[in-house]
Amino acid sequence: MKIGIIGLGYWGPNLIRNFNERIEIEKIVGCDLNDDRLRLMKMKFPSINVTDNYKNLLNSDLDAIIIATPVASHYAIAREALLAGKHIWVEKPFTSKSDQAYDLIEIANSKGLNIFVDHTFIYTDAIKKIKEIIDKGELGDIIYFDSVRVNLGLFQQDVNVTWDLAPHDLSIMNYLLKDYRVAAVKADGIATYYNHENIAHISVYFENEACFAHFHVNWTSPVKIRKTIIAGTKKMLIYDDMENSEKIKVYDCGVEFFKNEGRNNARIQYRVGDMYSPKILQTEALAVAAKEFIDSINEKRKPLTNGKEGLGVVRILEAAEKSIKDRGKLVELEPEMKQLKLFVK
Amino acid sequence: MKIGIIGLGYWGPNLIRNFNERIEIEKIVGCDLNDDRLRLMKMKFPSINVTDNYKNLLNSDLDAIIIATPVASHYAIAREALLAGKHIWVEKPFTSKSDQAYDLIEIANSKGLNIFVDHTFIYTDAIKKIKEIIDKGELGDIIYFDSVRVNLGLFQQDVNVTWDLAPHDLSIMNYLLKDYRVAAVKADGIATYYNHENIAHISVYFENEACFAHFHVNWTSPVKIRKTIIAGTKKMLIYDDMENSEKIKVYDCGVEFFKNEGRNNARIQYRVGDMYSPKILQTEALAVAAKEFIDSINEKRKPLTNGKEGLGVVRILEAAEKSIKDRGKLVELEPEMKQLKLFVK
Amino acid sequence: MKIGIIGLGYWGPNLIRNFNERIEIEKIVGCDLNDDRLRLMKMKFPSINVTDNYKNLLNSDLDAIIIATPVASHYAIAREALLAGKHIWVEKPFTSKSDQAYDLIEIANSKGLNIFVDHTFIYTDAIKKIKEIIDKGELGDIIYFDSVRVNLGLFQQDVNVTWDLAPHDLSIMNYLLKDYRVAAVKADGIATYYNHENIAHISVYFENEACFAHFHVNWTSPVKIRKTIIAGTKKMLIYDDMENSEKIKVYDCGVEFFKNEGRNNARIQYRVGDMYSPKILQTEALAVAAKEFIDSINEKRKPLTNGKEGLGVVRILEAAEKSIKDRGKLVELEPEMKQLKLFVK
Amino acid sequence: MKIGIIGLGYWGPNLIRNFNERIEIEKIVGCDLNDDRLRLMKMKFPSINVTDNYKNLLNSDLDAIIIATPVASHYAIAREALLAGKHIWVEKPFTSKSDQAYDLIEIANSKGLNIFVDHTFIYTDAIKKIKEIIDKGELGDIIYFDSVRVNLGLFQQDVNVTWDLAPHDLSIMNYLLKDYRVAAVKADGIATYYNHENIAHISVYFENEACFAHFHVNWTSPVKIRKTIIAGTKKMLIYDDMENSEKIKVYDCGVEFFKNEGRNNARIQYRVGDMYSPKILQTEALAVAAKEFIDSINEKRKPLTNGKEGLGVVRILEAAEKSIKDRGKLVELEPEMKQLKLFVK
Repeated sequence: MKIGIIGLGYWGPNLIRNFNERIEIEKIVGCDLNDDRLRLMKMKFPSINVTDNYKNLLNSDLDAIIIATPVASHYAIAREALLAGKHIWVEKPFTSKSDQAYDLIEIANSKGLNIFVDHTFIYTDAIKKIKEIIDKGELGDIIYFDSVRVNLGLFQQDVNVTWDLAPHDLSIMNYLLKDYRVAAVKADGIATYYNHENIAHISVYFENEACFAHFHVNWTSPVKIRKTIIAGTKKMLIYDDMENSEKIKVYDCGVEFFKNEGRNNARIQYRVGDMYSPKILQTEALAVAAKEFIDSINEKRKPLTNGKEGLGVVRILEAAEKSIKDRGKLVELEPEMKQLKLFVK
Repeated sequence: MKIGIIGLGYWGPNLIRNFNERIEIEKIVGCDLNDDRLRLMKMKFPSINVTDNYKNLLNSDLDAIIIATPVASHYAIAREALLAGKHIWVEKPFTSKSDQAYDLIEIANSKGLNIFVDHTFIYTDAIKKIKEIIDKGELGDIIYFDSVRVNLGLFQQDVNVTWDLAPHDLSIMNYLLKDYRVAAVKADGIATYYNHENIAHISVYFENEACFAHFHVNWTSPVKIRKTIIAGTKKMLIYDDMENSEKIKVYDCGVEFFKNEGRNNARIQYRVGDMYSPKILQTEALAVAAKEFIDSINEKRKPLTNGKEGLGVVRILEAAEKSIKDRGKLVELEPEMKQLKLFVK
Repeated sequence: MKIGIIGLGYWGPNLIRNFNERIEIEKIVGCDLNDDRLRLMKMKFPSINVTDNYKNLLNSDLDAIIIATPVASHYAIAREALLAGKHIWVEKPFTSKSDQAYDLIEIANSKGLNIFVDHTFIYTDAIKKIKEIIDKGELGDIIYFDSVRVNLGLFQQDVNVTWDLAPHDLSIMNYLLKDYRVAAVKADGIATYYNHENIAHISVYFENEACFAHFHVNWTSPVKIRKTIIAGTKKMLIYDDMENSEKIKVYDCGVEFFKNEGRNNARIQYRVGDMYSPKILQTEALAVAAKEFIDSINEKRKPLTNGKEGLGVVRILEAAEKSIKDRGKLVELEPEMKQLKLFVK
Repeated sequence: MKIGIIGLGYWGPNLIRNFNERIEIEKIVGCDLNDDRLRLMKMKFPSINVTDNYKNLLNSDLDAIIIATPVASHYAIAREALLAGKHIWVEKPFTSKSDQAYDLIEIANSKGLNIFVDHTFIYTDAIKKIKEIIDKGELGDIIYFDSVRVNLGLFQQDVNVTWDLAPHDLSIMNYLLKDYRVAAVKADGIATYYNHENIAHISVYFENEACFAHFHVNWTSPVKIRKTIIAGTKKMLIYDDMENSEKIKVYDCGVEFFKNEGRNNARIQYRVGDMYSPKILQTEALAVAAKEFIDSINEKRKPLTNGKEGLGVVRILEAAEKSIKDRGKLVELEPEMKQLKLFVK
């Protein structure tokens, strides 16, 4: 398989390194507008080819194109790549608007090409383990999903903190709570320094009203926190990505509520038991993602994080942006997703 | 000084013990409807008197009445006590409605009596230290106040999690950010088990729009978290009440934003320096509060956490409740507070 | 049951409070040389009697005497109390010398009286849980026991850090590893400020040479650490007493060693699996200890932490002291313990 | 500068990568007996040359040889390399015996060649910062140095845990406490599985008897701990290498001791103040070490971690080994170091 990588910024070297180490990859062509960046990549990875014109990648023998450019350019480049018959890998967030995502999905479907959206966290061993725990019903029904992802910097010039940090947590939520369809979104944002928000709180409501999700993303926190609580009716789980080991802790605790007949007040009982922390492998998520991308193309199947997953995240981001602009108004999601489902998979 | 304590539940023994150890207190009369509770208190504190009828406390030689009953009864009992000429100490939250708080404040003012609202955290050495740090301008202007107070249980039968847990953080915020007048409130709540919310997220907006506060309170978390981030333009601070030592950490970090003239994008620069953690004394906050209550009466001055502070918290709780019922609508606070200020102090 | 408490210093109020709350106790007489201390205790606990002459306790109707005086006086007072026909509770360490401990045990045995040594940690729910885990063989054979107990202060005037802090960990070790008989001791100590050591490292060797224990006790650490690792051939356990919850963590990890026949080097394999943290109850250990003391007298049986347990700790402390004085020489324990076993239980 | 690297095992890729990124390095030749290893390195770093015969490196135009082979072979290869006129970089520990270290130092001195011993930690920003703090007298006189470095695995086939892990901490101690000359060593070791110890406790005594050091190294701990306490008469410091940030904490605490004249006991007073944590840069230590190696050769000066530093660590390891074999006997160090000082620097 031959691949091209457009955009060799912060994430570029990681992409090159991981694809470089896959035996299926015969050729890598790197592309960036910045000549210094091209020279540096060529020095670090002498076996790759480089170019400063991405059109060269489209008119080529490459099988797939990796798009690691600023979000605003994802749609245009991705569309050209698909029309040129290339499978695509797009960095998160997939697109700036959900319409763009729908369009790309339809083109890819019609041409039998694969879209892979780089929701890297889905490929960590931690999230894989949490998925197993939830899917086998260990937590019971999910009551809430509460995520905090805060740190100091890096401010993005082109997007706000929601578009930068929330895709991680939204893609994790969508993956883990696949059956809890998102119905509405509400968000608050604060732009302390310039026109892009650096702090945001996002509330997500589901068709299943017994569940609720909340996200705090923030570029202006003195410490780095990446912590998610997933509470179920049977057990509760904490995923703390800043822990070196013991990233996941499963608590055998819960609340039981008894309606007391004949009395005017109910009885509530707490259950607190042992905690356990499953062993997590130290695999590099991007290596697993690269393998999934290659395998899905070779096996002619959709990858785990396909266009529809990318769209799922963009729809929420779009709604959150609308809500922030309207000082926190509730924004209901259009039900078009369901229609799409008919032909996507 | 002679005092009565009405309501000897969970907090009762702590109140008796702390007042019992004050040399100024000559007599304590405890009151509860539950006879077993009275017997137990009498056994633990043989020097106190007990009664099951609070009217006995009102028609007595007591100087002050401590009201530690369920919130719904605060107003009625407090009013009776004030009218009977007693100074009052009321557990948090002060009242169920802001109108009640206004009324009590006016009665107390007209009769020259003291209202003390038990915002206990204000009397911890940690909050005192943070107050000093903020007041001397070390943090610069406050950008945001973000608080998380979550744990498993104890569900209250009579109020939701907002009225139970948020008074702590709201009283801390009001105390620390005295000059940032609250303008509007927005809140989301989830009632998983019965009609009272067990999870809530509250956003607080100030007249000074450069600042923002957010509160997450939750009775259904597998772990206990009590963490507040206070970020300023100069430094940022974390107050983690679950730490045994190092409860406060002050980070010499920040963001600087430069508008680049002649260019179309700005430059943002991060500053990360040392952290320090001020020494905190291990005093019992309730002991300090008891002293302040006694001293304020003897010195004929308003205590630090007086009726107006209690009202400040109730106003926000009331607005949050309205917002929760209206699925997160923004609720603006009435500006009556300012009017009250004229005669309160 | 009527009891006397001699020595109302730091630990005194805790003793009074806990015995005061036991329904079996009809009368408590407190004794201290310091009149202010007596007055303070009488004020806090109006129901107790007080005296400044401990002889009054011996010639009385008291059933049992609690000795909470400096270590050097334990033996003399304990002996008098036993000869006066009283059961005794002695604070840790039991005595200053093992000969004294032997003597007290023999007197108590001959008179049918109980000796209780206040190894409080044995009565925590954490140690009880660890005991269960070890006794059911979950850890396999114990490889090592490594304990760190360090903090800043409180320097004792009369004993060094070994006699002050190590009794906690030695009593825990003796209790948990009952079958691993201590054979020899080695210790290093540093006296930074005056003639009593403030830092010590103690190594304990067992008759079973496959096991080993090490203790670091220190009055001059900037932070408080109380952490014990107990490693077995099957699993390993960490007991961190500074954790609010999750005090015990059991790691399903280990090392397997295979002698490779036909090759000149062996194969070593690591096993790392899940961790779990058993739920711990928040009981007050001293309350459990008080109950055990009372129950053991009423049931005419030896208490869990009896004279022999006290002796077991004193023998190690004595050997450690000898080793420190001899700059770390190995000190073998005399095998007299075995002889004693015949008649103690 | 042209360099050869002998031994491309665990640490090899890190060495190649770091030297590869130095602009001063024109040529790298890698050497290993294992052909698969050579192929893998050539694939990862296409620009290097490889050979399976280290003699090829000695008879070449290379300026310097990096020796990353098992400890037992360090001396023979280093000697050959020096005699062939090459500067050398030797992985820790420098040699298996101090005699070997003396010999290499003398050869290097006589031929004007540099010896660099890879005490990598010395090049971390954390240790650099601690060195500054100590050197400016902030801690006062050092009372003790207590280090714990424990984890699960990796057992070495050729050396015990002391030779594997302790060099890190001993090199840090020697670097930080340069003026506290080591006088004697005592060590205990436990070999649970085979003939090499997997647990060891090492005590180090100084000519200055007011200071003391202790090291706990262990391959059989369920968790990774890398924590050092350095206590001084003025302040105390904790270096926790497992912390992501806040690796260093400086505590403004201490003990003051007053001899009370006219009384028979002394007065001891504690001082506990603020803590601060200096900012640490996230530089890769090996990159700084590579720079120091190259610079020291170009500037014709001895590097920071030269042969004498390597010797200083080997002398303690050698003494510790002797002590372990003699069941913890105190082993005094020969004073030859002082003699060497005359001509080494």
